[in-house]
Amino acid sequence: MKPVILFAGGVTRWPHWEGPLRAALHDAQIDADLVTTAAPETVDYILYAPGGDTPPDFTPFTRCKAVLSLWAGVERIVGNPTLTQPLCRMVDPGLTQGMVEYVTGHVLRAHLGIDALLSSQNGRWNPVVPPLASERPVAMLGLGALGTACAKALAGLGFPVLGWSRRARDVSGIACLHGDAGLRAALRQAQIVVTLLPSTPETENTLNAETLSLLPRGAALINPGRGTLIDDDALLAALASGRVGHATLDVFRVEPLPPDHPFWAHPRITVTPHVAADTRPSSAAHALAENIRRSLAGEALLHVVDRTAGY
Amino acid sequence: MKPVILFAGGVTRWPHWEGPLRAALHDAQIDADLVTTAAPETVDYILYAPGGDTPPDFTPFTRCKAVLSLWAGVERIVGNPTLTQPLCRMVDPGLTQGMVEYVTGHVLRAHLGIDALLSSQNGRWNPVVPPLASERPVAMLGLGALGTACAKALAGLGFPVLGWSRRARDVSGIACLHGDAGLRAALRQAQIVVTLLPSTPETENTLNAETLSLLPRGAALINPGRGTLIDDDALLAALASGRVGHATLDVFRVEPLPPDHPFWAHPRITVTPHVAADTRPSSAAHALAENIRRSLAGEALLHVVDRTAGY
Repeated sequence: MKPVILFAGGVTRWPHWEGPLRAALHDAQIDADLVTTAAPETVDYILYAPGGDTPPDFTPFTRCKAVLSLWAGVERIVGNPTLTQPLCRMVDPGLTQGMVEYVTGHVLRAHLGIDALLSSQNGRWNPVVPPLASERPVAMLGLGALGTACAKALAGLGFPVLGWSRRARDVSGIACLHGDAGLRAALRQAQIVVTLLPSTPETENTLNAETLSLLPRGAALINPGRGTLIDDDALLAALASGRVGHATLDVFRVEPLPPDHPFWAHPRITVTPHVAADTRPSSAAHALAENIRRSLAGEALLHVVDRTAGY
Repeated sequence: MKPVILFAGGVTRWPHWEGPLRAALHDAQIDADLVTTAAPETVDYILYAPGGDTPPDFTPFTRCKAVLSLWAGVERIVGNPTLTQPLCRMVDPGLTQGMVEYVTGHVLRAHLGIDALLSSQNGRWNPVVPPLASERPVAMLGLGALGTACAKALAGLGFPVLGWSRRARDVSGIACLHGDAGLRAALRQAQIVVTLLPSTPETENTLNAETLSLLPRGAALINPGRGTLIDDDALLAALASGRVGHATLDVFRVEPLPPDHPFWAHPRITVTPHVAADTRPSSAAHALAENIRRSLAGEALLHVVDRTAGY
């Protein structure tokens, strides 16, 4: 009997995914029924994204062997008590690459002072050469797949990168710190801070009034991770005091960010509408097919979420 | 007798150079007289930059073994008929690194559409994810020390880089083209063009009405090389027609760019005031000391200018 794969990523996403998924399943030599509706007890694998039409109750999916997230962040599903099947995060090379491009671009934008260049097209020739990247320490908060890839790209361009994670990690070429003391040490040196932590109860408000106060005056903040990582009011206060010189935010506690939110009009906040990295069906479909192939062959699944850690 | 080294880089630059030069000479174990004035017939080496107080007539410097440029570009001295000594270009790791940062930052700015993000802080949530770098061909015109370093950095970030030089070159990881046909092939594919050619009679107006017309519609142009590489009127016409979507220019035929120049007020031109890369005395002094050490030891000088090629 063919395995049944239920696409529970929402009707609006299905047209973007159907072709790449069928192609990836074919390439992986998986003969399966890929469907958007099915009797729960017939489903072998669920491809899931928040906002889709997945029933919040996974209980009736009695033969389901794995729930495969279309997203890297799983905070909107990991706490679901009915979800007893293995849950896998998306690690999509296209998503990682997009994140590297966003982070590198916005770090260089801060480093080179591009906003100031754009706003001084006034006929006044005022050559101010920025310091070299080697003189601009960057803190990368989070050393998962995305944070590690971004840290390595920045180190490759010459930035001294201070990598931080809650639990100890070791990444070649990156000064790795961990724990509360490590966070403080990283923030005290960082002229640019990038937040790429998962959203968990432990990481909520990692940047708050106290930790933001450790930054060198005028530091730039870039958050392409999750909206919960930053205490919004503390950020506004740190911008007002000049402790934070500029913030570029791609993720928010409520998305879309409401039109009347103070971030939109703030002269030293740049809002980008959750575009830092997107799962790309063309590459992500291969990651999903590979995990289904592994499951069917009795091999270990990749990127299984640790329920106690939450990611 | 101690060799005499004449700093002919101008009185305003001397305070920035004296310390690094004395330190670099000391590190290279060169016991020399480093001076800002000397009888010409006593001078062994001239450290030169345009705009300084060097006499335009090099004839009386009868014992001078080499003229070492403080700048990467030598077009303002190479044609001087009185200059019969070997002339060396500056290849400063700090200058190269600064150029890599500028070029990578402005290529990513164009690639990610950062200008549009900055100008749409209006409360409207409009997530448009850019293509990946792998779908954005970049043409690098010029494969000297600077162009090669920038091409490699961009290729490292995933951009398909089309490298072009007048004479055939081979750079690993870069699709290398040369000659007139190669230029046309590169421009036909390039969504972003970076010009890092030397200023010579051969390279003048490399980008003109005809070559600009080959670009895909809306291409971005970044010129951190020399002002003479682009026909200014042809660029304005290409912007008006939409062939060129945006130009970021760091170098100009006249610098400082006059306040009433049309580039300043153009909505799709960004003027940066010759800040892409600067010789950094701290690193450049070591490059100068190394060439003096080589000359004193009878070894071949580095980065000697080919007078017929002009760079």
